[in-house]
Parts: sequence; C-alpha cells; structure tokens
Amino acid sequence: MRRLVADKTKQLIRTHFLTYKSHHPSLASQSFFFSSYYSTSTSTTTFPSSMESSDSSHQLSLQTLNPKVLKCEYAVRGAIVTQAEKLQEQLKKDPKSLPFDEILYCNIGNPRSLGQQPITFFREVLALCDHPNILDKSETQGLFSADSIERAWQILEQIPGKATGAYSHSQGIKGLRETIAAGIEARDGFPANANDIFLTDGASPGVHMMMQLLLRSEQDGILCPIPQYPLYSASIALHGGTLVPYYLDEATGWGLEISELKKQLESSKSKGVTVRALVVINPGNPTGQVLAEENQKQIVEFCKKEGLVLLADEVYQDNVYVPDRKFHSFKKIARSLGYQENDLPLVSFQSVSKGFYGECGKRGGYMEVTGFTADIREQIYKVASVNLCSNLTGQILASLVMSPPKVGDESYEVYSAEKEGILSSMARRAKTLEDAFNSLEGVTCNKAEGAMYLFPRINLPQKAIKAAEAEHIAPDAFYARRLLEETGIVVVPGSGFGQVPGTWHIRCTILPQEDKIPGIVERLTAYHQKFMDEFRD
Amino acid sequence: MRRLVADKTKQLIRTHFLTYKSHHPSLASQSFFFSSYYSTSTSTTTFPSSMESSDSSHQLSLQTLNPKVLKCEYAVRGAIVTQAEKLQEQLKKDPKSLPFDEILYCNIGNPRSLGQQPITFFREVLALCDHPNILDKSETQGLFSADSIERAWQILEQIPGKATGAYSHSQGIKGLRETIAAGIEARDGFPANANDIFLTDGASPGVHMMMQLLLRSEQDGILCPIPQYPLYSASIALHGGTLVPYYLDEATGWGLEISELKKQLESSKSKGVTVRALVVINPGNPTGQVLAEENQKQIVEFCKKEGLVLLADEVYQDNVYVPDRKFHSFKKIARSLGYQENDLPLVSFQSVSKGFYGECGKRGGYMEVTGFTADIREQIYKVASVNLCSNLTGQILASLVMSPPKVGDESYEVYSAEKEGILSSMARRAKTLEDAFNSLEGVTCNKAEGAMYLFPRINLPQKAIKAAEAEHIAPDAFYARRLLEETGIVVVPGSGFGQVPGTWHIRCTILPQEDKIPGIVERLTAYHQKFMDEFRD
Repeated sequence: MRRLVADKTKQLIRTHFLTYKSHHPSLASQSFFFSSYYSTSTSTTTFPSSMESSDSSHQLSLQTLNPKVLKCEYAVRGAIVTQAEKLQEQLKKDPKSLPFDEILYCNIGNPRSLGQQPITFFREVLALCDHPNILDKSETQGLFSADSIERAWQILEQIPGKATGAYSHSQGIKGLRETIAAGIEARDGFPANANDIFLTDGASPGVHMMMQLLLRSEQDGILCPIPQYPLYSASIALHGGTLVPYYLDEATGWGLEISELKKQLESSKSKGVTVRALVVINPGNPTGQVLAEENQKQIVEFCKKEGLVLLADEVYQDNVYVPDRKFHSFKKIARSLGYQENDLPLVSFQSVSKGFYGECGKRGGYMEVTGFTADIREQIYKVASVNLCSNLTGQILASLVMSPPKVGDESYEVYSAEKEGILSSMARRAKTLEDAFNSLEGVTCNKAEGAMYLFPRINLPQKAIKAAEAEHIAPDAFYARRLLEETGIVVVPGSGFGQVPGTWHIRCTILPQEDKIPGIVERLTAYHQKFMDEFRD
Repeated sequence: MRRLVADKTKQLIRTHFLTYKSHHPSLASQSFFFSSYYSTSTSTTTFPSSMESSDSSHQLSLQTLNPKVLKCEYAVRGAIVTQAEKLQEQLKKDPKSLPFDEILYCNIGNPRSLGQQPITFFREVLALCDHPNILDKSETQGLFSADSIERAWQILEQIPGKATGAYSHSQGIKGLRETIAAGIEARDGFPANANDIFLTDGASPGVHMMMQLLLRSEQDGILCPIPQYPLYSASIALHGGTLVPYYLDEATGWGLEISELKKQLESSKSKGVTVRALVVINPGNPTGQVLAEENQKQIVEFCKKEGLVLLADEVYQDNVYVPDRKFHSFKKIARSLGYQENDLPLVSFQSVSKGFYGECGKRGGYMEVTGFTADIREQIYKVASVNLCSNLTGQILASLVMSPPKVGDESYEVYSAEKEGILSSMARRAKTLEDAFNSLEGVTCNKAEGAMYLFPRINLPQKAIKAAEAEHIAPDAFYARRLLEETGIVVVPGSGFGQVPGTWHIRCTILPQEDKIPGIVERLTAYHQKFMDEFRD
C-alpha cells in the first residue's frame, strides 16, 4: 500500500512538470539553459534514487517536498561554490595538495570578503548607534569624528525611545525613510515620499515580496532579461510563476530592444500566460551594461502601454565606470516623461550591499513603491508586517548610503577619498580583466560599463562540449569546474544566468583587490591556453 | 469585453474560496475565529468595491493579486495598531484632544520600545565589531569592558577576513554557529552540531522557510495550537497550506492534550488533508503556559509515531517566571527518550528578540535542524542561499545570547544584575496584571508561567456581542477598540490568535515598565466597569 502511494505521488509530481512544459513549450528549453549543471538541486526531469526508496507519502523525502522548492535554483551559491569551499578546507589541512595556494572567489558580488575596507563614517555611526552610552563620554571624541557623533544623535532622535533594539514600523523607521526620500529627491530632482519607502533586509526580500504579490499561478509571468541575476528565476520558481525571458543583445553590448520585449510578450500571451511585470536590471547583472536614457524612456512607455509593473533593480546605481554613461533611475525617467504617481506602478530596489559601500553582510536595502492603489499598498504593508520589520542596523546604513557626509563635514574628505579610491580601482580592475578576457582565443567580452561583473562569451570547441555532455554537465560548467580545479579561481557558469542556446559564458566579478589581479590574469590565461590545446577542434 | 474578463476573474476567485471551504468544512469556522474583525485585510468572502471598477484582468487590482496574500492576516500589527498609530499622531498635534495622554502598546512583544534597556555587554561587543578600528586604541579601554574587547577580537577572528560587511555562508558564520552549538550543549546536556544551525533574521524567516518546504497545496496541513501566534496562520496562508487546529485547554491552564492532537489528525485525514508537521510553542504565545516534561515526552512520541516534523517554537526559552516550571528543549526531551539524530525530524526556533535581551530590532535568530536526510538538508540550504545570508549583527547577537559572560569575566556582575533585574520585574508585572484581570467582572486569566503575555478570557454580555455584530466586527475586537479609544491601551483581540468559538479573549503583553503598571491597571479597571455597566445583560 505504502509503495503504491509513493508511486502515485511520484507520478503526480512528474505529471505536474510535464503539464507545465506542455503548456509552455517555449520554456522547455529553460531546463537546459537554467540547467543545474552538476548542481545539488534536483532538475525538473530527473529524480534522485532516494525517492524510490521512500515508503510513506507523508514522511519527509524529496518527493513529498514542495515541488516549487525543488524547481528553484540559485547558481551564485551553487555546486561550484560548494566545491570551492571543500577545496579551501583541503588547502587549510594540506596547503601543498593543490596546484594553487588560495581560492579566489570571483563568483559573487561580495567585495568585503576580498579585502575591501568599509567606509569609516558609516561604521563610526553604526557603532555609536549600537552603544549610545558612550556618545557623551570624553574619550569618544578622541575615537570618532564630530559629524559621526552628531549623525548618531540625529538618528537616535528619529527612533522612538532611541531604541535600536525595538521592532520598528514594518516599513522601517519613519525618520530614516524621510532621510532616504530626501536622498532620492536630491538624486533625481523629483519629489520622493517617505511613505513610499519599504526598508528591507537587502534587496532580495523586496523582490520576493513583489513576486509573492503578483504571481497567482504558472499562468502569471514576469518578463526577465536573459542573462538575468538568478534571484529572479529562483523567486519566480518559489512563488510558482513563469519566467518569460527577453534576450539582451550581446552584439550591441547587451542592448535591450523593445521589439524583443514585444515579441516575448505576444508569444507568452498566445500561450495563455499573463505577463504581470517587467524586470530591468540597470546597471546590468551579470552583463554590466548601463542603459541609455532614450532606451529607458522606451521601456517606461512600453510598461505604460502594456499595463505592466516595472520592477527596476537599481542596486548598482553607484557603480558606473565609463564617462559616457550615467545612472538615471526609472522613476526620474517616468517623471521626466510627465507620468505622475498614479500613472505607472513602479518599484525601485536599492541595497547597501553594492555601490562602493559594499556592506553585504549588514543586509540593508529598500524598495520605493510608487503608482499602486491604496488597497494594494495595504497588502504590501501586510506582507511586510508578517516579518515585523527589517534589521535596524541595515535600516540605519540605508539612510547613510542615501545621505553621506557633505562638503564641510569633518568626515567629508576621508569619505570622498575612500569612495573615489574604491570606484576608480574597480574601474581599473574591470578594464584589466576585460582586456585579459578579450585576449584569449575564442573569447569575446563586452565592456563593464557598470555593476561588478564581466560576462565573457567563450566559444567552446565541439570536443569540449562533447566531453561535458559525457559528464552530464553544461559545457560552461565544465569549463568553470576545471578552472576552479586547476587555478582556484571561482566563477559562475553562464547557464546559471541564462544565455542564448548554444552560446557559453562565465560570470566573473571585478572584485579581487588590485594586487591579486595580475596573478588572476596569468592563471586564467595559462588555464585557457591549456584548455584550448586539449580540446581545440 | 473588459467588463466580461473582470467578472470572470471575480467569479474564479470566489469559486476558489468556495471550493476551498467545501473541501474543508471544519475550516469554515476559521473565517470567523480568524476573522479580520475590522481589519484592513480582505476577508475570504467579501470583496471591496474597488474590484468592481477594475477594467482589465492583468492590471493591478485586489482581484488580480495572489489570493494567498489576500487570505493572509497578521493581527499583531492589524487594524487596532493602525488606529493606535493614528491616535498617537493626533496626540502629538493636539495633546488634549483625547481622554488620555499617551498610547500604551501592549499589543506586541517589543520590550525595548517600552523603555527596557539593552544588556550592556551585548551592545559593547556589537559596537566593537562594527568599528574594529578602535579595538586597539587606548581610549577604548576606558569606554569598554575588557571581556567585551576580548570577545570582539574572538568574533572577528571567526569571520573570514574579519569582514562583518561581507555576505557570510548562507547558514551563517561557521565560528558563530559553533559558539551557538556549544551553548545548546551546555543548556541541554546533549551534543549539538554547528552544521545543524541556520542563522536567520529573527525566528520568522525560519518558520517561513519550513512552511515553504513542507506545503505543496491546501491538501497539506500543519497542526497548530489554538490560540496560536499568528505568524503561523499567516505563513500557512501565504504558502497555500491548511492550518489544522488543535485546541489548548483553557480550564487546565492551556493544557496540551495528546487526545486532542489525535482527534484533529484523524479528522483532517478524513478530509483528505495530509498533516506534515506539528507546531508547539513553548513557553506559549499568547497563552503563557510552560509545558511539563512528561507532556513534552508524549508530544515527541506522538510525532515519532505519526511521522510528523516537530516545529518547536522555543523563542521564550529564557522567559519562565514560576519556580515549579523549567524550560526543556524538545531536542533534549527527544534525546533523553533515546531518539537519535535520524529518528525524528525536529526544528527548534530561537530568537534574540525575546528572553531578557529583547533585541527585536536586530533581527537575529537561528533554527537548529535535526533529523532530516542529507538531500532535504540540501534543499533547506538552497532556499537559505537564495537570500544569501542573515544580517551579521543579528548573527553576532545570536552567538552572544547563547554564550553570555561567565563567572570571573569583567562584565559578569553587571550582566547578571541586568538579566535578573529584567526577569524578576517581568515576573512581578505578570503577576500584577494577572491579578488585575482576575479581579474584573466576568474575566478569568490563567497564570503567565512564561513568555510575555496574558490571554484573559472575557465573558462578554450578549448586548455587547450584538453591538459588535451591528458594526460587523468580532466582539473581542469591539472590546479592544473601545479600550484603545477610551484609555490608549493597545491589546490584540483573541480572534487574531484563534479561540474556541463563542469565547472571547484579548492578548496583553506584560512589557510596560513597572512605573506604568499601576496606571494601566487603574485605566483598565475603570474601562471594564464602565463597559459592563453599559452592556451588562
């Protein structure tokens, strides 16, 4: 009997996936380009042997888990990273056991893990807010700048009871939201409202919240760029919707074509999928392009015409490295086109993890939610309130990022030097790595105009593709795994982000400190040459 | 055409809810005892007028949102709190406009918002970890205790690159998890493993993660106590499962009877609902009971026999106020019964928000996950990794809570005095408020053996119930709203937690500072007498 139940459940899960695919023929290919390469995740078509041995439908096994969880994948922390961690442990125990002496994590936008130092002013204010007892002690003036002491007082005044240990309003401390709104106004030249700000633990929970709100079933779709940051594919999978891909044009520097958006929208309509929102990542992750103002205007008009929510991932707004590009928020673009608050539902995500500040571990961020009706806003507030509030340290940091020291403040010079030092160094590292990739046989790499990544295309020889197939992993995962094993360099295979079928990429961050870059270039070049020598057709 | 589409969608949503109810007749009553009283949430049976005017099925309106979001309710921050915030704004503008001069928030376990001071040692360590540049400066020794400086060094050594601004491992910093595991071992007398610890932003995200994993559809159920903390009902609704209620016995001090668990399990089976897990909140929220060891053993045996995951909400483990009760973790109970790692899937939730530390705003916590197979653990890890990691400040605090100063440490005496001061004061406040409630006409109130709440039962007169019905709100919400309007005291109606149909309760925290308690008792007593005089049958 138990066996029968187990078989029936397995059948049900299979049917679920088969049904899913037959309804969305265009998405069938996703199981390839979002393939789990040799990841720990369960793919949508194969089932691990542990399922076969389960003996009760209600006992815990992969087959009785929520299938949406099984379907979700997140390559940035996928199998290659797990393997890298194991190799790191091995190096600790036996430093001579591998052909390299350290693991170089180029897989994730985590600058502080690679030695980038924090912005002094931000950390001074955080420490004082954590332990306000020292604020009025004389020794404190020897340890902290005058404006950090003043700012800490100001912030504590904004927090009811000065209590950084209390749950705040579910959108975040009102005074901090006012500071952020003022920062947005200063950035855009258009009004911003503290009531539109929802402070979040990094940008990710905000994205999840919007997906949860918008996705009713797999008949609801979200237009996402391909390549995309896999938070989007993971979140859409977890919330049971459909990712409707639009392809960025690699040949024109990852250009975003409105004709492509239209084509994919029509195509999904014809398959019965209702597209609810458009995700735009600007500056691009993993692609590094910065959108031109004219292009942004077209995107706003497209969303307006089609009734789509515009989900604007703007977490790299402070990371622009080329003089001919400038970051413009989508809200600024919409307002400059004359669209007001009620004309267009628009969510802008910002994070303290990126920029030059790179405070990933503090998990701070916000979303600015405009153009939604009051009853929907109430629903967003309700979902936010179930988790009570985001962490106060992250909230404070988000206010600092949007309101840094100004000319005349004691910290201003140090702050400016730190900011300039980090951003100019990132620009140099981006250029060096870009040139290095472009010098490799069969590799082309677009410029990183912004963000923190390069996404070079690797024209893998057929022999390498066949070798990967023999190991049942994606060819770019094959390339990335060998790169790790031979050099200690960790990158993410392009298949984790999505790519035009038949093309292969890797994502490599520009974040290792500058003294490491020559070594990385050298190891990468030697590895690639050896790889090509082995597999060249 | 548009009108037609809108009508059709509305019909679909209605059908969804009707279908849901007809499949689960026992749950129909939930729409009453989890009723949204006069909340901002949409109830499952009525639709706001804005729906009628929507003109396109894909444009944003309540009817095109995820219906699971609409169904979710969270009373702790519901309509009464929203009204309280409005009244507070009014008081600010016009302090004489209301019959009271301040709002007293007894709705939420948020001690720091009511003046409770933080544990000095914890805050010293946090400040030093935030701004390690000052660690080796001479002024620092005048401002911080020697052991907080030493602990900060230790913690920074555990963090790769000393980088509190970096994303950590998705389960949290390994060294901090080792500290927590050692704290669990010291508490329980049984081994704990750092690999079983998942650090989270408070306990709530851990609960969501487990619900997401376990709930496939509304045919999957979770056994939850009634009354329950509404995070559970909210999370089950958001993840599309079914709350299977088991009633705590008010007459025996909110006793948890195994016969009741069995009855509800059988009943749900007969309705085609598969129960996946049992939630136990110990010490109880909102009910304040502390389970007896013998009772806990029965619960463990029940879960073992029925193949249920035991979700143990143990966030109030440090809040026990009566000498004849002691907190025992469910893991300790299971191990003492001889059940080992692989015998029973068990998740224990802990938080830095409760206890005597009360650091709600820092959003720290962990879940200890034992008894799951490696493949399921990989799925939990994957879901955790999509959000990268929990905030480092909360992670550090969780390690401090599980490893406070020891005898001989410079901070020990101050720490012990702070801890003892807070806990003994909470015990006094609990007793005073319990006595006050019990002295009111028609009110009975069980002892708060632990946690932070009283959940008195109010035998409301028929006339009051009719008056509430005339206003289309639950009778206890009617009582609570008038309490707010007349006294400024904010409590949560029992209908937000669930209660035996026909009984009425409120949840009142024991957290206002002691100098406020006499005033609260006085206002409450006067209000209640006036209320009864108006409505007595």
